[in-house]
Amino acid sequence: MDPKKTSFEILHSDSRTNARQGVLHTPHGDVPTPVFMPVGTAGAVKAMPAEFLEALDARIILANTYHLYLRPGHERIERLGGLHKFASWNGALLTDSGGYQVFSHRELRDISEEGVQFRSHIDGSKSFFTPESVIAIQRALGSDIAMIFDDCTPYPAGYADAEASMELSLRWAKRCREEWNRQNNGAQALFGIIQGSVYSDLRKRSAEFLGELEFSGMAIGGLSVGEPKELMYEVVEYTAPLMPWDKPRYLMGVGTPEDLIRAIAMGIDMFDCVLPTRNARNGYLFTSTGRVLIKNAQYAEDQGPLDPNCSCQTCRRYSRAYLRHLFHTGEHLYAVYSTLHNLTFYLDMMRKIRESIALGNFGNWLGLMEKGGD
Amino acid sequence: MDPKKTSFEILHSDSRTNARQGVLHTPHGDVPTPVFMPVGTAGAVKAMPAEFLEALDARIILANTYHLYLRPGHERIERLGGLHKFASWNGALLTDSGGYQVFSHRELRDISEEGVQFRSHIDGSKSFFTPESVIAIQRALGSDIAMIFDDCTPYPAGYADAEASMELSLRWAKRCREEWNRQNNGAQALFGIIQGSVYSDLRKRSAEFLGELEFSGMAIGGLSVGEPKELMYEVVEYTAPLMPWDKPRYLMGVGTPEDLIRAIAMGIDMFDCVLPTRNARNGYLFTSTGRVLIKNAQYAEDQGPLDPNCSCQTCRRYSRAYLRHLFHTGEHLYAVYSTLHNLTFYLDMMRKIRESIALGNFGNWLGLMEKGGD
Repeated sequence: MDPKKTSFEILHSDSRTNARQGVLHTPHGDVPTPVFMPVGTAGAVKAMPAEFLEALDARIILANTYHLYLRPGHERIERLGGLHKFASWNGALLTDSGGYQVFSHRELRDISEEGVQFRSHIDGSKSFFTPESVIAIQRALGSDIAMIFDDCTPYPAGYADAEASMELSLRWAKRCREEWNRQNNGAQALFGIIQGSVYSDLRKRSAEFLGELEFSGMAIGGLSVGEPKELMYEVVEYTAPLMPWDKPRYLMGVGTPEDLIRAIAMGIDMFDCVLPTRNARNGYLFTSTGRVLIKNAQYAEDQGPLDPNCSCQTCRRYSRAYLRHLFHTGEHLYAVYSTLHNLTFYLDMMRKIRESIALGNFGNWLGLMEKGGD
Repeated sequence: MDPKKTSFEILHSDSRTNARQGVLHTPHGDVPTPVFMPVGTAGAVKAMPAEFLEALDARIILANTYHLYLRPGHERIERLGGLHKFASWNGALLTDSGGYQVFSHRELRDISEEGVQFRSHIDGSKSFFTPESVIAIQRALGSDIAMIFDDCTPYPAGYADAEASMELSLRWAKRCREEWNRQNNGAQALFGIIQGSVYSDLRKRSAEFLGELEFSGMAIGGLSVGEPKELMYEVVEYTAPLMPWDKPRYLMGVGTPEDLIRAIAMGIDMFDCVLPTRNARNGYLFTSTGRVLIKNAQYAEDQGPLDPNCSCQTCRRYSRAYLRHLFHTGEHLYAVYSTLHNLTFYLDMMRKIRESIALGNFGNWLGLMEKGGD
């Protein structure tokens, strides 16, 4: 295969579930899947020195087009050699399209057929995103994988609203595809995003239309926006089989360790979420024996490691008592060491899941989960 | 020599100045001098992962008794095995006595012969420090080097006030020495602190009195408290020769790279200051070609390293443009990478100064300085 292009290979399929284990080849290295992508909003995974991220063998991170467009600006990043060079990140990079961020700040936006006018959450200045401009911005950033610009349907949405929003997303998807074709440099892949809220026939129409546009991968968008958990699982369950089997399937903005396991069983290959990094900074730590809220008094003199089953530097070196102290004194180092641990937890879990799919015992993960836990 | 005790050896003396190059043997390793001690206020050098600090070959750090007394409490640290274990720091540790912090928050303090009552800057709760309690607190922390509890005379102070304050410090020094003798475990060294404001005869009386108490090292306190720079140099110049020649001489809370060079020429061996770490976080970076205020627009598209002559990870990996971006977006990583650089600058400078004293060309540093610079 062409080392300069993104392609996908499925190496193992689970016999009891729809889980797959594969590898995403990118111009910046191979990414074994299923994969969790740490979120590097502003071109840096918050509080994670790149040395730590590399030691963790993170192969791909996600950066936010919306944030980089505002600061320092995509044109500046392009002049500085692209996001890989600017951030000194040699692994793979996926950029989202900003659709979700514009959706999050909806009181600041004004949507039309042409695109979305929105106000910066930083200084209130106005900008206008169109499918074409968002493709151009991501091209300037130079990510390995770009996402189409979509209208992220809020929850709850009535059927008619969800349908109109989904159809707008499809028209934008076509414009993104055309713009991408015009600018195609052979190195950047483009993924489609299925919308349709919680309506199965809308998800189906979206998936079928996007399938014909032949993207390099397909994502499920518009979830984790406030809908009940079971409804989210239901949508993933009926949407995943509608996605091309031989291309990477990406569930955007999800989620908890349990979400990941369940979605992998449904055939999802890629994930991103701020949960491990944001929770870390807020004192919520994932461990093999359940969550630890590090601010709690019970850890004040706890000499044990955060997670006795974790091999990260935080767990090898520091006690819960010391981490709690760093949290309470507001040290930057608290953010560093807590993020390192939570990301290790996520990435180690994904590594083990990949192994289990390859070895044919992925079902154990579902069993483990049913026995309860956090 | 006894590896469990702190001792000092002078290896080289400069022929043209009073500079000395030596080694401070401590129960937690050897510390080549002159040495700059990074400040680890709360038992952690702010924003510096211990791995980075170790890679920098930092051999000794300073921790603040006042801050650790308040959070998490010295008794807690003692129960957790002492500060070395709590903070997972295997190098040498020096604790100050809290005198300076109590002085800094003077509107919150009430001083008497017995000691100082003060209010916590965190929650306003009252505490009472005495020479005896401060020795006990540092013993609980388990630092390699403890400092006596002194009254840090403010600047400006009239002669009578400075004399009364200095004499109170001497009475407290005696009480500290006696308490230390009672608690002596053979592992922790105690340093005296010379006061006397800007009056040479007061400094002389203080130095002579403390000299008879036979501390393991001697410090100059009460400087860098608002006096003009030249006056500070003058005090160091006439005080240093009054300090025991064969024991380490420590200038507390000083200073800029220029301050360090000038004080080393006067015979000082040890320094601590928040300048490199605090300045880093505020965007003030030390480089071989002068200071860099990283927030400035001139660096927005500067692809060069922060300091082309620096080998730290920050300079090897990132551009000024990226560091400026991290600063402006308020990323924790900005604090990490800027602190790493500024401490590298300080520690590399001290390493080169030690080499130059050993090689007999320390005078070049003074020459360099006179040619100007930052």
